[in-house]
Amino acid sequence: MDDDVPLILTLDDSGSSASAPLDDLDREELPNENGGSYDIINDASSPATGDCCVQQSSARHNWEMNYQEAAIYLQEGENNDKFFTHPKNAKALAAYLFAHNHLFYLMELSTALLLLLLSLCEAPAVPMLRLGIFVHATLELFALIVVVFELSMKMRWLGFQTFIRHKRTMVKTCVLFVQFIEAIVVLVRQTSHVRITRALRCIFLVDCRYCGAVRRNLRQIFQSLPPFIDILLLLLFFMVIFAILGFYLFSPNHSDPYFNTLENSLVNLFVLLTTSNFPDVMMPSYARNPWSCVFFIVYLSIELYFIMNLLLAVVFDTFNDIEKKKFKSLLLHKRTAIQHAYRLLITKQRPSGVSFKHFEGLLRFYKPRMCAKERYLTFKALNQSNTPLVSLKDFYNFYEVVGLKWKAKRNREHWFDDLPRTAFLIFKGINILVNSRVFQYTMYTVVAVNGIWILVETFMLQGGNFFSRNVPWSYIVFLTIYGVELLLKTTGLGPVEYLSSGWNLFDFSVTLFAFLGLMALAFNMEPFYFIVVLRPLQLLRLFKLKKRYRNVLDTMFELFPRMASLGLTLLIFYYCFAIVGMEFFAGVVYPNCCNTSTVADSYRWVNHTVGNKTVVEEGYYYLNNFDNILNSFVTLFELTVVNDWYIIMEGVTSQTTHWSRLYFMIFYIVTMVVMTIIVAFILDAFVFRMNYTRKNQDSEEDNGIVLEKEISKEEVVGIIELYKRSSAATDTSQLQKIVLQMDKYGQMSTLFLGRRSRTKSDLSMKMYEEEIQEWYEEHSRKEESQTPLQEPVSASNSSLKPQSLRQRSQTVI
Amino acid sequence: MDDDVPLILTLDDSGSSASAPLDDLDREELPNENGGSYDIINDASSPATGDCCVQQSSARHNWEMNYQEAAIYLQEGENNDKFFTHPKNAKALAAYLFAHNHLFYLMELSTALLLLLLSLCEAPAVPMLRLGIFVHATLELFALIVVVFELSMKMRWLGFQTFIRHKRTMVKTCVLFVQFIEAIVVLVRQTSHVRITRALRCIFLVDCRYCGAVRRNLRQIFQSLPPFIDILLLLLFFMVIFAILGFYLFSPNHSDPYFNTLENSLVNLFVLLTTSNFPDVMMPSYARNPWSCVFFIVYLSIELYFIMNLLLAVVFDTFNDIEKKKFKSLLLHKRTAIQHAYRLLITKQRPSGVSFKHFEGLLRFYKPRMCAKERYLTFKALNQSNTPLVSLKDFYNFYEVVGLKWKAKRNREHWFDDLPRTAFLIFKGINILVNSRVFQYTMYTVVAVNGIWILVETFMLQGGNFFSRNVPWSYIVFLTIYGVELLLKTTGLGPVEYLSSGWNLFDFSVTLFAFLGLMALAFNMEPFYFIVVLRPLQLLRLFKLKKRYRNVLDTMFELFPRMASLGLTLLIFYYCFAIVGMEFFAGVVYPNCCNTSTVADSYRWVNHTVGNKTVVEEGYYYLNNFDNILNSFVTLFELTVVNDWYIIMEGVTSQTTHWSRLYFMIFYIVTMVVMTIIVAFILDAFVFRMNYTRKNQDSEEDNGIVLEKEISKEEVVGIIELYKRSSAATDTSQLQKIVLQMDKYGQMSTLFLGRRSRTKSDLSMKMYEEEIQEWYEEHSRKEESQTPLQEPVSASNSSLKPQSLRQRSQTVI
Repeated sequence: MDDDVPLILTLDDSGSSASAPLDDLDREELPNENGGSYDIINDASSPATGDCCVQQSSARHNWEMNYQEAAIYLQEGENNDKFFTHPKNAKALAAYLFAHNHLFYLMELSTALLLLLLSLCEAPAVPMLRLGIFVHATLELFALIVVVFELSMKMRWLGFQTFIRHKRTMVKTCVLFVQFIEAIVVLVRQTSHVRITRALRCIFLVDCRYCGAVRRNLRQIFQSLPPFIDILLLLLFFMVIFAILGFYLFSPNHSDPYFNTLENSLVNLFVLLTTSNFPDVMMPSYARNPWSCVFFIVYLSIELYFIMNLLLAVVFDTFNDIEKKKFKSLLLHKRTAIQHAYRLLITKQRPSGVSFKHFEGLLRFYKPRMCAKERYLTFKALNQSNTPLVSLKDFYNFYEVVGLKWKAKRNREHWFDDLPRTAFLIFKGINILVNSRVFQYTMYTVVAVNGIWILVETFMLQGGNFFSRNVPWSYIVFLTIYGVELLLKTTGLGPVEYLSSGWNLFDFSVTLFAFLGLMALAFNMEPFYFIVVLRPLQLLRLFKLKKRYRNVLDTMFELFPRMASLGLTLLIFYYCFAIVGMEFFAGVVYPNCCNTSTVADSYRWVNHTVGNKTVVEEGYYYLNNFDNILNSFVTLFELTVVNDWYIIMEGVTSQTTHWSRLYFMIFYIVTMVVMTIIVAFILDAFVFRMNYTRKNQDSEEDNGIVLEKEISKEEVVGIIELYKRSSAATDTSQLQKIVLQMDKYGQMSTLFLGRRSRTKSDLSMKMYEEEIQEWYEEHSRKEESQTPLQEPVSASNSSLKPQSLRQRSQTVI
Repeated sequence: MDDDVPLILTLDDSGSSASAPLDDLDREELPNENGGSYDIINDASSPATGDCCVQQSSARHNWEMNYQEAAIYLQEGENNDKFFTHPKNAKALAAYLFAHNHLFYLMELSTALLLLLLSLCEAPAVPMLRLGIFVHATLELFALIVVVFELSMKMRWLGFQTFIRHKRTMVKTCVLFVQFIEAIVVLVRQTSHVRITRALRCIFLVDCRYCGAVRRNLRQIFQSLPPFIDILLLLLFFMVIFAILGFYLFSPNHSDPYFNTLENSLVNLFVLLTTSNFPDVMMPSYARNPWSCVFFIVYLSIELYFIMNLLLAVVFDTFNDIEKKKFKSLLLHKRTAIQHAYRLLITKQRPSGVSFKHFEGLLRFYKPRMCAKERYLTFKALNQSNTPLVSLKDFYNFYEVVGLKWKAKRNREHWFDDLPRTAFLIFKGINILVNSRVFQYTMYTVVAVNGIWILVETFMLQGGNFFSRNVPWSYIVFLTIYGVELLLKTTGLGPVEYLSSGWNLFDFSVTLFAFLGLMALAFNMEPFYFIVVLRPLQLLRLFKLKKRYRNVLDTMFELFPRMASLGLTLLIFYYCFAIVGMEFFAGVVYPNCCNTSTVADSYRWVNHTVGNKTVVEEGYYYLNNFDNILNSFVTLFELTVVNDWYIIMEGVTSQTTHWSRLYFMIFYIVTMVVMTIIVAFILDAFVFRMNYTRKNQDSEEDNGIVLEKEISKEEVVGIIELYKRSSAATDTSQLQKIVLQMDKYGQMSTLFLGRRSRTKSDLSMKMYEEEIQEWYEEHSRKEESQTPLQEPVSASNSSLKPQSLRQRSQTVI
C-alpha cells in the first residue's frame, strides 16, 4: 500500500528542479546582510510598503509585524474569514490574537456546551440530573457572562462598525440579551416559565470556531431551500386536490374514519405521503369497493414515487451546483489571501519573490510548532524555479504544500535489515510468508469459517443458558490463530509498518478486544460478555477482497468528517425541536392516556389476570414522550424514521389541541430537508469519487499526496548557520541530527518525502483543472478593473492600512 | 413560443447553402438518363456492387432491391437490431417483410396479452370472469399455436443457425415448449395443477416488438445488478452481525418477542431495514432499559441512512455510466447502418454521393407514407454541399433529418389577416387583449380565488348533504369566466394556434369537463359528480408562472414515455410474483385466520353487540390476499409501499410455513432494485436536463428541433417532371399545389420549416459533442483495421452477400 507514488497536484517538476544552484544562491545572499544580525537590517530588505522615512531601528519590528499580518491573512484565507474582519490596528490585533487561539476556542465551545447541557437539569429534567432552580439559573447566568466577555473581545477586534455589520454576531447578541433577561427573571421568580427561547441556545454552539462545518452545512441547507420549497408546494398542491377528492369520494362511507372531514382527509393524506398509515387508510374504502384502491395508487405514484424523487433530484442538482460554487469562491478567497500575504513579504529591492528568511518569519507565526527542517523543506517544495526567491506563482501553492508532513526517505527496506544474518533470514522468511497470497487467503478462509461457526453456534443456542461458565473451545482456537497471525505480521513487517495500514489497525484492535472478552469470560465478568459479540467484526476483513468494497470503505472514511458534521447539524435541529416539544408536550402522554383516540391500543397498559397468571398488555407508546430531553431525542429519532410516527402525533394531539399536528408536520418537513441533503451529499461524494477514479484509471492506486525533495548537506549547514546568526530562538537540533546522519552514512544529500492525505479539495482541483484556469483569469481581470490606477502591490496594502497598524503596534507589542 | 429558431444539431449552415445551383445540377443530370424512363437505366447508374455481367434489364430490379435492403439497414440501425439478423436471401427477405409490419406486431402483442389475461380466468379466478377449464385451456392452446407460427416465421427469416444463436428467441422457444405441454396436460386431466410456469408468460410480452423499451429497461436492471448485489451483501452482512448481537442482548428479556430466537432476530432486523416495525421492535427492550435504543439507532444509522443511500449512489453511478455507453453504442450502430445503406445507393460512376433519384427510392421503402414534397425537402436538408449528390458525411445526419415534419412557413401573422377591415380590427383588439400581461394575471387571480373558494366551500360542507339538487352559483360564475376566456383566446389566436400549446389544450379540456360536470349536476346524473372535483385542476395553471415549474413539467413530459416503460417493467415483475403468490397462497388468508400469530389483531373480524347496537371490529388485512390476480396486484402494491408489509408477511407465514417469508423478502429486494433504478433514472434525467439548460443558458427557449429550407419554383417543377417521367406511381398533387400557391402570391420560392420535438438523444448529442468525435474516429479506425485489404465499399457489401439476395429475389418478388 505504502508505495512511493510521487504524486503531485500542480507541483509538477519537484524532482527535476536542481537543488544545488538554488542552495548556492541562497547562501551567497545570506552573508551580504550586514553580518547576518537580524536586528540590523538595511533599507534594502525593509518591507516594500514601508515608507523610507521610517526609522531603521524599527525595521525589524516592521518585519515582525509584516510576518504576523501575512500569517493572519493566510489564516483568514484558510478559514474562509472575510477580509473585512481583518484587524485594522494594534488594539484590534491584540484582541484578534487573544480571540484566535485554541484556549479561547475551547472556552467558547465549553460555554456553548454548558448552556446546551443545562436543559438536562432544567424543569422537565432527566430524573437523575435534576438541579434546583437557583443552581441552574446561576450556572446559566455564569455561562452567559462568559459569552458576553467573548463578544466584547470580538467587538474590540472588529470595531463597532464591523461588529454591527456582521450578521451572525448581531443575531448572537440579540439572543444573548433575551437569554440574559429570562435567566434573571427565572432567578427572581424562582420558577421556570415557558421558555421556548431556550431552543435558540444552539446559536452559541453554531457560532463556535470549531463548528465551522456545521455553519457551512446550515448555509448549504438554506441555499437549497428555495428550489426545495417550490417542489414542496407542488407536493402540497396535489395533496390538497386529492384531499378534496377523497373527502367527496369517501365521506359517504360512515365506517371510514379517515376521510370524514376535510381536515382529517388532509392530515391522513399528509401521513400517507410518509406511507405511515398505508394500507390502513385504504382498507375501509377498499372493503366497500375494490376499485377505490385506484385513488390511493394514483396518489402514491404521483406524490411518493414521482414528486418526492423530483425533490431529491432538485436538491441534488442544487447541491452539486452549490458545491462547485463554494469550491470556486474558497479557491479564489485563498488566492486573494496569498496575494495579500505575498505583498507583505516582498521587498522593494527584490519585488520578484520571497526569500527564505522572510518565508521562515511568516511560518514562525503561521505554524509556530513547525521545526526548522520542515520550514526549509516547505520553502524548497514551494520553490519551483532555480532562484533563491519564491515567486507569486509558486507561492500560490502555499496551502497545498504547508500541510505536508516531512519524513526522511528510509534507506532500509525492512526493519530487520540491520540485524545479524540468522535473525535476518528468519525475519525475511516471515516477511515473505506474511506477504504471500497463500497466507492471505488462508486467513480469509479462517475468518469465513469462523463466521459460519459463530452463526451455527448462535443458532444452536436458541435462548438456552448461553453464558455458560466454560469458555467455548472454538473461541480459543480461533483467537489463537488470530493471535499467531498478528504476531507473524508484526514481526514480519515491523510494528510501525504493520500499524500504518488502517486495516491492520482494525485487525489489531478487534483481536485485542476479543482477547479482553476471553479474559472477561474466564473471570466470569458478565458485563463484558458483549465483547464476545465483537468477534463477527473480524468478518469485515473479507470485504478487503473486492475492489468495490475498498472503494466504498475508502469513500466512507473520506466522508466521515462531513457526515459527522451533518449529524451534528441534525442534532442541533433536534435540540430546538426537543426544547419546543418539552415546553408544550411534557407529561402529556402516559399509560392509557388516549383511550378516546383512534390510536388508543398503542398507549394501553392493562394488567389483567387470566386464570392464575398475570398478563400485562402493553402498547408501550407512552414511552415515546417529551418528558425530558433524552426522551425527546429518542422520540424525535422515531419521528425521523417516520414509520408509525402518526401514532405519536395522534397520541399527543388527542391530549392537547389539533394545532399540535403542526409541530409534527413541520418536524417531518425539516428532517425531510436535512435527510434529502444527506442523501444528496452521499450521492454527490460517491459519484464524484467514482468519476475521479474513472478519469484517473491509468494512475496507480494512490494513498494521499506525496512530494519528494532532496536536500544536500551544504544546504542544511547553511540553514543552521542562518539560524545561529539570527537571534530568533529556533531549535536547530533536528537539523544537526540530519547532518550527523548524513555523515554517518557518508551521503551528500538526503531525500525527504512530504505526505498528506488527499482531501476533497484536491480531488476538485484535479476534476475542474481546466475551469480553474478560467476562474483565475476572470478573477484577476476583475481585480485589475477594481484597482485600475494604483500599482497593485501598494494598492492592496494601503487599502487595508497596515502602515497604521505597524506604527501603532510599536507601543503595544 | 413558436418562434423560428434556426436549426441546430450538426446541420449548421442550412440557411446559407444556395439552392439554385444544386437545383440546376440536379435537373441537368436527370434528362441524361435515357429519356428518364425508370426501366431503362444504363450501366452508368447501375449499383456500384453489381457485376457488369448482370443483365441490363435487371438493373431496375437491382435498384429496387438495393433500395429495399438499404431501407432495411436503416430500420435495423434505428431499432438497434443487430446486423447478424439481417435477411440473407430472398426467402429470408420475404419472411423478414412479413414479420416486420404493424399487423404482425399487433398479432404478437395481442397473443401475448391474451396469454397474460388468461390468468384472470384461470383457477383462482376473478369471480366475475371465471371460465371453464376446457375454455381457458383451449384459448391458451390457440394462443400458443399463434406463437409457434410467429416463431416459425422468425426462423424462416433468421435461418436455423442464427435462430439458435439468438438467446432471447431460444428462451422463448423453451418456454413455449413447456407451456404447450402443460396446456395439453391441463386439457387432458381437466384440472389445473400447480403451474408456476405461468409466471414465464411475461416473456411473450417482453419479446414483442412494441416492448423494446421494456427489454432495454430489463437489460439495464440486469447490468446494474452486480454492484447492487455487492452493496446488498454488505447490508446483509451487517444485518447478520446485528442479529447475533441483538439475540445475545435482548433474548434474556422474555417479554421481548422480537429477539427470542436467531431466526426472529434476523427477520425482525430485515423488517427493521424497511423501518416497517419501528419503533415497536424497540419498545420491549426500551421499556426495560432506555439505553437499548442505542442499538437500534446505530443499526438504522448504518443500514438505513448510510448503506441504503450508498446503494442508491452505486446504482445511480452505474446507471449514468450505462446510459452513456448505451448512447455511444447506439450512435455507432446507427452510423454503421448508414454506411451500409450508403454503399448500396451509390453508383460506380458517381461514388461520391447519393443522387435524389436513389434517395427517393430509399425513402419509398423506408417511409412509404412520406409524400413527394417531404422527400425532396429531406434530401435538401441532408445536402450541405452545392453538388446534386449527398455525400456520406451529410448522409450521417439521416436519422436527425428524416423525422422532421415539414410545413410551409406561413406568410400571415394571424388567422384573421385576410378578413375585412372592421373584423380585422376587432380580432386584432382581442388578440392584443389576450396576449397582454394584465389579462393573464387577471386570469391567474381568478383561478386562485376559485381555488380558495373551493377549499372554503368544501370545508363548510363537513359531511352534510353535499350533493344538493341546486347547482352552486359560484360554480356557474367561475365556469362562465373560464368559458369567456376560452372564447376570447380561441378567437384572438385562432383555433389552430390556440390548441397547439399544451397548456391551452389542458385549459380547454378541463373547462370542457367542468361544463360536462355542470350538465351532469343540472340533470341530476349523480355518477358524474366527481367531475365537479376536477375543478381544482384548473389551479395547475398557476404553476405556469414560475420557470422552475415549467422546467419540471417539461422534464416530466419528456420523462413520461420512459416512466411508462419502467412502470410496465414493474408490472411484469408484479405479474410473475402474482402468479407465484396465487399458486402458493391463494385462499390462505381469511377473517380471523391468524389468531395464533403476533398480528392477529389486523386479521380480526368480530361482530359483537354492545347495548342494542351491533359493532363490527374489523382488521381488514384479510383483504390483502392472493385469491385472484387483481387482489394479488393490490397486495403486491402494498408490499411495494413497504409500510406494514410485515403484517401481510406474518399473516401468510402463520398459515403456511416459515419459508413463505422468502417470497416476501425476495419481492422486497426485487422492488428495491426496480425502485432504485427508477429513482436513479429520474435523478439522471433531471440532472442531465438541468446541466443542459445551464450549458445553453444563452440560447433562447427552445421548442424542439427546427430546420429551414427554401425551395424555388423551378426546383418544384423539376421534381414534378422527374416524377412524371418515372413510372413510379407517386402522388405529385401536393407539389402542384405548392406551384399554384407560389403563382398566386407571385413568389419565386417558398420557405419550409421542418420541426420535431427534441429527444434525449439530441440532448446527449449536444452534451457529449466533443467525445462523440473521438468515438467516431476510434470507430472508423477499428473498422479499417477489421477490413484492411478489401476496398471498404465492396467489402461491406460482399460480406453480407447482397448479390445473392438480389439474384434470387427476381424469382420471388
